[in-house]
Amino acid sequence: MVIEYDGTNYFGWQSQPNRRSVQSVLAQALMSILNQPITLHASGRTDAGVHALGQVANCRVELTLELPTLFRALNSYLPPDIRVVHLQEVSLSFNARKDATSKEYHYWMYSGSQFPVFLRHFMFYPGNYRIDWSLLKECIHLFVGEHDFTAFSASGSSVRNMVRQIHRFEVYDYENGFLSFQIVGNGFLYKMVRILLGEIWMVQLRKKKIEDLRLALIQPNRGKHRLCLPPHGLYLTRVFYPDYDFWGSDQSSPSFPFFYFQKRV
Amino acid sequence: MVIEYDGTNYFGWQSQPNRRSVQSVLAQALMSILNQPITLHASGRTDAGVHALGQVANCRVELTLELPTLFRALNSYLPPDIRVVHLQEVSLSFNARKDATSKEYHYWMYSGSQFPVFLRHFMFYPGNYRIDWSLLKECIHLFVGEHDFTAFSASGSSVRNMVRQIHRFEVYDYENGFLSFQIVGNGFLYKMVRILLGEIWMVQLRKKKIEDLRLALIQPNRGKHRLCLPPHGLYLTRVFYPDYDFWGSDQSSPSFPFFYFQKRV
Repeated sequence: MVIEYDGTNYFGWQSQPNRRSVQSVLAQALMSILNQPITLHASGRTDAGVHALGQVANCRVELTLELPTLFRALNSYLPPDIRVVHLQEVSLSFNARKDATSKEYHYWMYSGSQFPVFLRHFMFYPGNYRIDWSLLKECIHLFVGEHDFTAFSASGSSVRNMVRQIHRFEVYDYENGFLSFQIVGNGFLYKMVRILLGEIWMVQLRKKKIEDLRLALIQPNRGKHRLCLPPHGLYLTRVFYPDYDFWGSDQSSPSFPFFYFQKRV
Repeated sequence: MVIEYDGTNYFGWQSQPNRRSVQSVLAQALMSILNQPITLHASGRTDAGVHALGQVANCRVELTLELPTLFRALNSYLPPDIRVVHLQEVSLSFNARKDATSKEYHYWMYSGSQFPVFLRHFMFYPGNYRIDWSLLKECIHLFVGEHDFTAFSASGSSVRNMVRQIHRFEVYDYENGFLSFQIVGNGFLYKMVRILLGEIWMVQLRKKKIEDLRLALIQPNRGKHRLCLPPHGLYLTRVFYPDYDFWGSDQSSPSFPFFYFQKRV
């Protein structure tokens, strides 16, 4: 299934005791409808407050309903901030985490002087800054390719191999202070996207130099004083698999939830 | 001042005992900064859950700060769901309610099958319906001009004169299920916009006939079983005054909070 959620009121994807998580709410909905135990495998965790337009998860069930019926029942049962946007049968060996070959995230920011109140849960607003676009592009360019990202990960994960490949890293200027980052890679360490962007932002603020970032990739160790940008600007937008294409022929990415519809000219 | 607010967590504009209202939060902010009693006059009340992009309010104060300083202090003090977007000195006789010559509202709906979770507080979603556009346009056309709107107002107001003039009433198709209404008039009765749209929606649902609406305008009395659409689709977007133009030369309306920025092509 492909899942969309507003992460504002959740402690992230992963089930935790006494915490409202997307996984537990979704598993509970499936259990109630299908009347059997459910183990959900997602492409990966998202942290508290992080949103998703295209999280992918799977589970193995004895299906007594038609898929379209389950789809409707599930969305009726789910709270209004979680929605299953696509549901299909996959091979028994499919695992949404292990089979994922790459993932795409978007991060949204506003750096002007008039931040709309309606966007406060959906974009990071660091304050009114004039962006140095060429410096920004120089920074993100550093990270494309295969690197050891130890210096850009948070502790608290049991992962040993810190080498990851960034396939694509772009920044988009929407004018009037709005900007977004698109990052695609074969995997991301714990809080890696937000720390990468935090360190890039530190360079914007002239609190770090671009050489510091370059060095952190060559001599990877977890430094102190790293900035991790807040979760509410981050969206998991797509997850890619070798045997399944959940995104259809439309190669453009659903980068922002409010681009579902077009401005009327 | 021109004020923008996300009405989701407020019991409307108007101060009420033991209720969080936009008026009381804003007045409290001004009192704390200016250290004097504040009486705020707004162009009109907005109901619980209704949003504003262009509410106008005024107050009389002894100003000891420069206006830009007050503007910054106010927005620092206010919670993130209320923002003053413009602040200026006006004549002592100005009254935001009494001087308003017309007001503009927008109402947003989604009638497709895939309602984005992120829009749940910002648009009304009645379910998946195929819109009869020509019927819709015929309905809204009925209301343009001067009419007695008794049949389209809620009880609970002390207003006697129920005659109002609708200058403009349009519907816009944004495709993919998104639509918006724009309504401009010299004044609106209690819940009038939402009841007008509710009755128009009843005609869409074939639960009322367009003749019922026509009759309700000719023989105005408050009927039963009138549908009042939910508040979270409604935005007070602009208020017009003879002596002040708060909207500049830009004649296009900020009809939706997520149109602050343009989709990148």
